[in-house]
Amino acid sequence: MLTLNWNGKMKFTAHTESNHEVVMDASPDVGGEDKAARPMEVLLAALAGCTAMDVVSILDKMKTPPKNFRIDIDYTKAREHPKIYTSIHLKYVFEGNVPKENAEKAVNLSQTKYCSASAMLRKSAEITYELVFED
Amino acid sequence: MLTLNWNGKMKFTAHTESNHEVVMDASPDVGGEDKAARPMEVLLAALAGCTAMDVVSILDKMKTPPKNFRIDIDYTKAREHPKIYTSIHLKYVFEGNVPKENAEKAVNLSQTKYCSASAMLRKSAEITYELVFED
Repeated sequence: MLTLNWNGKMKFTAHTESNHEVVMDASPDVGGEDKAARPMEVLLAALAGCTAMDVVSILDKMKTPPKNFRIDIDYTKAREHPKIYTSIHLKYVFEGNVPKENAEKAVNLSQTKYCSASAMLRKSAEITYELVFED
Repeated sequence: MLTLNWNGKMKFTAHTESNHEVVMDASPDVGGEDKAARPMEVLLAALAGCTAMDVVSILDKMKTPPKNFRIDIDYTKAREHPKIYTSIHLKYVFEGNVPKENAEKAVNLSQTKYCSASAMLRKSAEITYELVFED
């Protein structure tokens, strides 16, 4: 179970099953105080975290972990309510001599098999991705 | 744009467009250190925050804000990969004499029109909800 508590104005704190908190707030123009991320940003963060954990975990099993790793996400949203994400582009950026084929295999496995956030959001948004290798 | 940085092991920090952070970690049995919520919990938190902001905001416009408010979420997940949520049940709990019809209108508007997280996740999971009024 997850419980979300109201902290006044537009601030909310989710208490998750693993016993952690996720805080959200709105921008001042809609009554918030900008003290935490917006819910739709948190949704994107979940997608990024989900696929990132897959990729790091698979590369680790292949004995080719990256030295550093990040994901940059660009997105477009619908103009009318509900303002869903219509397209999401993930740029997986690897540093530190990760064999290209291993990185591709890890990302493809995550996107086609393991990442549940991606599997859910793909029903609404076009999810695309690319791999970038930096020294 | 959203950027997700790797903090070692299974810990990741998302930096959102509004300039806030969302931290995620995995459980020790899959190589994490349990320092923050799991990505799929963060996805649910986003759903809860999204619809909660709608509801509080709509009730505020109706001049009938709740004294207190929370959302409890129960869910079931697929057993096979990708382990998506197959059903999500939201219990909207209102305290403080909110007129029932206003609360119902606010929740229905959020679920059918405004909440983009709900609109996206509903394509994969059956989303149901109920309203509870506490003194």
